[in-house]
Amino acid sequence: MGSTFGRHLRATTFGESHGPALGVVLDGVPAGLLLDLDGVAADLARRRPGQSSLTTPRDEADRPEVLSGLFEGRTTGAPLAFLVRNEDADPSAYEALRDVYRPSHADWTTTLRYGIRDWRGGGRASARETVGRVAAGAVARQLLAGIGVTVVGWVDAVGDIDATVDSSRVTRADVEAHPTRCPDPAAAEAMATCIRAVRAEGDTVGGIVGAVARGVPGGLGEPVADKLEAALAGAMLSLPASRGFEIGSGFRAARMRGSVHNDAMELRDGRVRTRTNHAGGVLGGMSTGEDIVLRVAFKPVATLRRAQDTVDVRGAPAVVEARGRHDPCVVPRAVPMVEAMFALVLADAWLGARLARVAWPT
Amino acid sequence: MGSTFGRHLRATTFGESHGPALGVVLDGVPAGLLLDLDGVAADLARRRPGQSSLTTPRDEADRPEVLSGLFEGRTTGAPLAFLVRNEDADPSAYEALRDVYRPSHADWTTTLRYGIRDWRGGGRASARETVGRVAAGAVARQLLAGIGVTVVGWVDAVGDIDATVDSSRVTRADVEAHPTRCPDPAAAEAMATCIRAVRAEGDTVGGIVGAVARGVPGGLGEPVADKLEAALAGAMLSLPASRGFEIGSGFRAARMRGSVHNDAMELRDGRVRTRTNHAGGVLGGMSTGEDIVLRVAFKPVATLRRAQDTVDVRGAPAVVEARGRHDPCVVPRAVPMVEAMFALVLADAWLGARLARVAWPT
Amino acid sequence: MGSTFGRHLRATTFGESHGPALGVVLDGVPAGLLLDLDGVAADLARRRPGQSSLTTPRDEADRPEVLSGLFEGRTTGAPLAFLVRNEDADPSAYEALRDVYRPSHADWTTTLRYGIRDWRGGGRASARETVGRVAAGAVARQLLAGIGVTVVGWVDAVGDIDATVDSSRVTRADVEAHPTRCPDPAAAEAMATCIRAVRAEGDTVGGIVGAVARGVPGGLGEPVADKLEAALAGAMLSLPASRGFEIGSGFRAARMRGSVHNDAMELRDGRVRTRTNHAGGVLGGMSTGEDIVLRVAFKPVATLRRAQDTVDVRGAPAVVEARGRHDPCVVPRAVPMVEAMFALVLADAWLGARLARVAWPT
Amino acid sequence: MGSTFGRHLRATTFGESHGPALGVVLDGVPAGLLLDLDGVAADLARRRPGQSSLTTPRDEADRPEVLSGLFEGRTTGAPLAFLVRNEDADPSAYEALRDVYRPSHADWTTTLRYGIRDWRGGGRASARETVGRVAAGAVARQLLAGIGVTVVGWVDAVGDIDATVDSSRVTRADVEAHPTRCPDPAAAEAMATCIRAVRAEGDTVGGIVGAVARGVPGGLGEPVADKLEAALAGAMLSLPASRGFEIGSGFRAARMRGSVHNDAMELRDGRVRTRTNHAGGVLGGMSTGEDIVLRVAFKPVATLRRAQDTVDVRGAPAVVEARGRHDPCVVPRAVPMVEAMFALVLADAWLGARLARVAWPT
Repeated sequence: MGSTFGRHLRATTFGESHGPALGVVLDGVPAGLLLDLDGVAADLARRRPGQSSLTTPRDEADRPEVLSGLFEGRTTGAPLAFLVRNEDADPSAYEALRDVYRPSHADWTTTLRYGIRDWRGGGRASARETVGRVAAGAVARQLLAGIGVTVVGWVDAVGDIDATVDSSRVTRADVEAHPTRCPDPAAAEAMATCIRAVRAEGDTVGGIVGAVARGVPGGLGEPVADKLEAALAGAMLSLPASRGFEIGSGFRAARMRGSVHNDAMELRDGRVRTRTNHAGGVLGGMSTGEDIVLRVAFKPVATLRRAQDTVDVRGAPAVVEARGRHDPCVVPRAVPMVEAMFALVLADAWLGARLARVAWPT
Repeated sequence: MGSTFGRHLRATTFGESHGPALGVVLDGVPAGLLLDLDGVAADLARRRPGQSSLTTPRDEADRPEVLSGLFEGRTTGAPLAFLVRNEDADPSAYEALRDVYRPSHADWTTTLRYGIRDWRGGGRASARETVGRVAAGAVARQLLAGIGVTVVGWVDAVGDIDATVDSSRVTRADVEAHPTRCPDPAAAEAMATCIRAVRAEGDTVGGIVGAVARGVPGGLGEPVADKLEAALAGAMLSLPASRGFEIGSGFRAARMRGSVHNDAMELRDGRVRTRTNHAGGVLGGMSTGEDIVLRVAFKPVATLRRAQDTVDVRGAPAVVEARGRHDPCVVPRAVPMVEAMFALVLADAWLGARLARVAWPT
Repeated sequence: MGSTFGRHLRATTFGESHGPALGVVLDGVPAGLLLDLDGVAADLARRRPGQSSLTTPRDEADRPEVLSGLFEGRTTGAPLAFLVRNEDADPSAYEALRDVYRPSHADWTTTLRYGIRDWRGGGRASARETVGRVAAGAVARQLLAGIGVTVVGWVDAVGDIDATVDSSRVTRADVEAHPTRCPDPAAAEAMATCIRAVRAEGDTVGGIVGAVARGVPGGLGEPVADKLEAALAGAMLSLPASRGFEIGSGFRAARMRGSVHNDAMELRDGRVRTRTNHAGGVLGGMSTGEDIVLRVAFKPVATLRRAQDTVDVRGAPAVVEARGRHDPCVVPRAVPMVEAMFALVLADAWLGARLARVAWPT
Repeated sequence: MGSTFGRHLRATTFGESHGPALGVVLDGVPAGLLLDLDGVAADLARRRPGQSSLTTPRDEADRPEVLSGLFEGRTTGAPLAFLVRNEDADPSAYEALRDVYRPSHADWTTTLRYGIRDWRGGGRASARETVGRVAAGAVARQLLAGIGVTVVGWVDAVGDIDATVDSSRVTRADVEAHPTRCPDPAAAEAMATCIRAVRAEGDTVGGIVGAVARGVPGGLGEPVADKLEAALAGAMLSLPASRGFEIGSGFRAARMRGSVHNDAMELRDGRVRTRTNHAGGVLGGMSTGEDIVLRVAFKPVATLRRAQDTVDVRGAPAVVEARGRHDPCVVPRAVPMVEAMFALVLADAWLGARLARVAWPT
């Protein structure tokens, strides 16, 4: 609700793109987790702009400070608070935009809702807000690691270029091997070429992020309102610029026959398994124990180095054109954001599963 | 959470497919709404099976009883409770399934989670659970009607057959004109043929439901965790058999350039408008005032009149084959479910917008 | 929130004093509990009016119907819904009150809030609403019984008459031995005499309910916002006519020195125990493992068989005087209500404790 | 839930007594409030220790930093984050306590719950945690000031010394006139003498805080689960060391006859008013428009400069005796904490009232 994600594990983010600081309060972390702060910093570094020539060069050091919730390296059950300073925020760059609504940004809708707008960048709607989510997601990832769950995301498409990725094997190393974060080398090169081309034109391009969670215990998620796929969809569509979500066979399932789509069941290696995984690891809102596989569509970045028709705050016609360098494609940086939301949802569901039975199986 | 949808307008459903009754408690309905109970019954009738030769013939009268929250025809601010009896529930038909897990159903995941399973039908995972949602959604729809918002859903695809629908004009009458609930007559006929063919083969087929909300005020939704598109995605993915969600240009946005996707702004008829609506009526989590347009993908029905490999509750190989008549395609009946969730989310967001400013504009 | 109690175990009540029915949806009950429905009915019978000459004779049979959530006698993890019909509701008795606000009732505040008022009795503010809470509380009590927790409430004071009760030993049988539900026989007789006297005068009298939970595991409750005593206080003050709450030494603690109030610790029978229990079983929001002891103050019933000055709905001076027989003292019937809320809070906290550690101790 | 207070206006606190920092994220503040940061700092200064010879001399500067949510002095609808550094935290003073449980502190219960304990002071259970609440409460107070609501708290009793205070007239200036924060000068002097005496003995003493809200609109609060008195009781019992709560005539109501307790209604100055206010401004969970009057009981401070029997972490007998200077009486400093929680609850209810009607009256 509002700025809070999750039911049992609750991440409340704060901070605007050009305010003094951003951060997150993560409440509900169980006590006793030995937290690897370098791991948190590493995850934050991955969402940072300026990591390669393909992304925006704004320098965000994003060294997180832990304000609470740790004692002798372990979580205590108290809320963890992470703080990241906005060191190089330069709102003067936005002066030109104080009286105009940028097309396909939240400027206009923010004004409609609140009657007031912090015109220094995107405010809460900025991708910068996800700093807090990624820090919280890093904690969730470490919780999940303790039960053998790994989450890996990758760039699955940029514009018309689709990657071929084996979700059952892809690793973070594969993903980080190329600045596009696409683990299919040929597609990665084509994507990089595409991104450079659109940048040269002052344009931008959208893309798709794929992600998988492996090692997920069965029975996570709820059968009605908090179906696991519903929680995942809500989490992913809360990411800036996301426009679509699918799980398992997703939109392709709509084209299929039941006889093709159904996943036959069998006993394999002593466990109930499915022969195929069109379900994407979730049936009736609850995890099956198979890999959870999903995809998230992102629209092209709205900030263009091109003249665009719009209106000013008085409703008069205006033209906006971004100066400086801007991110031509958000999807490489969206990978850690998708992973963070994925981990937060799974960790939340893992906690929720403890409430499902009178005698909880350990 | 659990069985509750919404933040301000909270719909808590109860009931299993073969228990004594189903229903919903809808809390947070503002006082003073003159409720049209015939309208509620009409919405329920649309989700009922057996409406045409294309759907399952199980006879669910679904006459809802209002147990509370009304006085002299108006809502009082107290929770509205709706009750629908399961009059013809015949669990004996499920006896054969008590020891076996049906592929691509929630039988196995329910057992994983709860250690116990009501084998009489799908339990909570049954589409029958949506009776309560549709009743609640009918109330939400009437709330929205008071501020000029209308929600219309339709069948946009069945298998490989896509419809062509103008979301800015389509009406419920257009949709109800054909048993497929597809307002494109040529596509509707092709879909009907397809559905009859898959049924004849004992098979099933998936599809896509499209929906639009027109007349939505600007500024509904929140910029971070409860983005309007996130709430919609979560609501839609909580529907049985749904596998994907997209808003506005959705997955197609991933293929587009920013210069094509961005919606230029202008003053039109005295209001700030966009020339195109790739955003689907939502920017940065908040409504723009343009039509909200979305699509939901549904997988093919999992119950087949064909032999399928599976395991029994002891893990031994087994074969299941449904007897009797079953729904070969869920999407015509999914239309009122999508509309109900759409209306619930919008009414919730409409209430939430009242909290956004110190002085709330009336 | 609204009509919902609890975080993990969520009881949503519905129904007005003179509507068609009342009930509750209890969501979050763990699967596998063998539910004793006779026990639920017995708890409901205890809150019913007309149990003795000391209470109001309105006949409420209150046979609860279970609508969902049970399978072969056990909970399934699905929401439990209980329904009780209002069989003898006779709103015509309230016709005289449709245009007047009764002093010290919720008539006026309901109108202020909702702009509309169901004048047939107290609506949601009626003690009748607690039917749903008592049914839910009975389930919570059965959950707690499985871990050795018992909850006992009693009448601790009526007007100026105080009982002497040993909270460490009092049983339900002791409490039920007298129609006042006071387990101190001498005080009970004096209370009965007092109640008969106030009734004869057309007057009413207040009182205090005491309650104890024994066998509570240590560590239930949270250290900040959901302190166990905070949850208990909120639950008790949500009961109709309640005006005060105290835990352990309560208001007397304000008069004490730390050297007297502090509970020295020792190892006893292999467990860390306190020598005294001024804390009332809770320190810093979390249970100590000692008995949890609390008291709830109830004001005198507001309905009097005496003329009272008030105003009508137009603001003109008016006089109200109740006809028929009314309850002269609510506290005997408040005992099962206090127990129900106590059990709901403890069961909720018991579930919450499962989330407190990475490895949850079984 | 957890570390979050409120439904619509949600204050999430973080920080331990001896961690790097404390603070709060306040989400749900409506946009457009011109925030007086000096006022926030002033409220924080009032809860600080070391304000007089009667309280503990620990030096907490408590200059709050605003991290987010403000733009040009006004709230934007984004979460407000306040940060206070723990500048002089000296955990070494607690070394002696790392292996021992202090009686009547949360040391033991924290260990029971979390299996791990930050032994540097009280951790989350410390009164230091209320820094965040007081900052959030200061914002709530400013929101309420805009609609004419004022909240004033005072010390109503210390040990056996009771003050006589006219809740309808008492001002903050009256309260601040004496270091005890008791506005009855004679009682204040007696309290100061008592506090000095208990300190001299190495002992501590409890007390009662009274508080009033004036100018509250009618109809705030809900009739069932979120009754205004329930929300207030929960908020007050979440304060460290609180043991009891009463509203209006409170526990005295239990001694009264209905004919004495009922508040007759009349039209006065064009408004429906009550002649008396035994209700304390709340009927059936909703505000009447009369003053809301409540009292909160606090136990004596648990830290004594006296030897106390306890056990160490291995269960062996031990003796603890505090060194240095400690607060002999918490109630003067509890006044701003009670006011903060009062203001948070009222501001939350004020927002909630906007959702109660289809057409919300402005």
